[in-house]
Amino acid sequence: MNERIDQIQFGDLKLIQNQDWFCYGIDAVLLADFAEVKEKDMVADLGTGGGIVPLIVNHKGNPCGTIGIEVQNEVAELAKRNVLLNGLEEKISIIHANVTELDDVLDKGTFDVVVSNPPYAKKDQGIKNSNTHKTIARHEIHGTLDDFVKAAADLLKPHGQFCMVHRPSRLVDILSSCRNHRLEPKEIQFVYPKESSKEPNILLIRCKKFGGVELKYKEPLYVYKEDGQYTDKILAIYEKNRGQ
Amino acid sequence: MNERIDQIQFGDLKLIQNQDWFCYGIDAVLLADFAEVKEKDMVADLGTGGGIVPLIVNHKGNPCGTIGIEVQNEVAELAKRNVLLNGLEEKISIIHANVTELDDVLDKGTFDVVVSNPPYAKKDQGIKNSNTHKTIARHEIHGTLDDFVKAAADLLKPHGQFCMVHRPSRLVDILSSCRNHRLEPKEIQFVYPKESSKEPNILLIRCKKFGGVELKYKEPLYVYKEDGQYTDKILAIYEKNRGQ
Repeated sequence: MNERIDQIQFGDLKLIQNQDWFCYGIDAVLLADFAEVKEKDMVADLGTGGGIVPLIVNHKGNPCGTIGIEVQNEVAELAKRNVLLNGLEEKISIIHANVTELDDVLDKGTFDVVVSNPPYAKKDQGIKNSNTHKTIARHEIHGTLDDFVKAAADLLKPHGQFCMVHRPSRLVDILSSCRNHRLEPKEIQFVYPKESSKEPNILLIRCKKFGGVELKYKEPLYVYKEDGQYTDKILAIYEKNRGQ
Repeated sequence: MNERIDQIQFGDLKLIQNQDWFCYGIDAVLLADFAEVKEKDMVADLGTGGGIVPLIVNHKGNPCGTIGIEVQNEVAELAKRNVLLNGLEEKISIIHANVTELDDVLDKGTFDVVVSNPPYAKKDQGIKNSNTHKTIARHEIHGTLDDFVKAAADLLKPHGQFCMVHRPSRLVDILSSCRNHRLEPKEIQFVYPKESSKEPNILLIRCKKFGGVELKYKEPLYVYKEDGQYTDKILAIYEKNRGQ
């Protein structure tokens, strides 16, 4: 077991990660910050991995409860240990299940917010990493983009919020799938590596179940300054003061 | 008749415009520049208005022929006069027709490139200008976005190029409609008023008939510098040298 415990950026949160499987990236942090979560909310995270998004969402928004869904049993077990490590078992639950099989596990129409950092690559796209855990986390092996969107649509209350982080190259798939499942896209944000970057490499999207047609754009976000340091906005998301 | 003749930016092109109807804007110029037109191409412009896009496309790409379609008879007549004024009747034809009724007018599957600067607003959106010419040019009175996209799909050869300028707020409608008609979005570009603008106000999109799924982003385009002058990129599109 190639595990390590990290003191992550948010309050006193600690995180066990298995470096042979995968470590969380900035995508998960941006998603947790992008989601607009209130204290009374019930939140679900589809494809929670080691539980990073529920931990940060709970830290930032203090919702009533958060449920993380993870298809890989060993990874779900790791997420459960992360919840215990942080003493958050009253606030965060981890369920081992596939997003395509939630009907028997969770009640439909009961969540205020659903978030997801799903696998980005199509099943047959590129060379798969031979490590099964990474492959499943990164490729649509057990669930496609449309499966994740459909699960979110099922779980949400009317007018509930769905937030997802994904690749900009999948924009057409994302918008089509969301609209097909009546999760109307309301806000998108493109994230660029640097201000001088020509193409965005991360997309954040907020949809509203049964929402009206009105798409807004959140100001573009740049991760690094030209000197390679995080921009002030990224530092604020990581809850670091400038210059630290 | 509140007409004027303008010497526009491109070569020796001249343009009659009726100020009571509408005058062309930067959107048409950006569209004509965005379209990738080669000498052997046949080009159609859906909703050509006074014919500005065919004139600029012909100037920039020198295609084999360009046909402008315009639903308003008086406006189509103006476009024809603009073609004559510039001595381009061998290269550009104007047809008075609705995009929903092209089957009897043009052969399907015969165009290499279709461009369009369609009405941006839904039929019932906002207060309509009482001036009928403007209302028809700006609102989906005679044809919806989907009608324009369907017409483009019908006219194009397999692997033909469809380029459209529209509002970013209609992105979901645009991408869904294009994919539904098998015009796969291949490239999009967001245009911002200034570098400091938070939201884009113009969207350019390039689709390929029967194209594969692979969306790219063209570098964001900024129209004005902070001092209110056109940026160098816009000056280049208008074929002006810096500082002129």
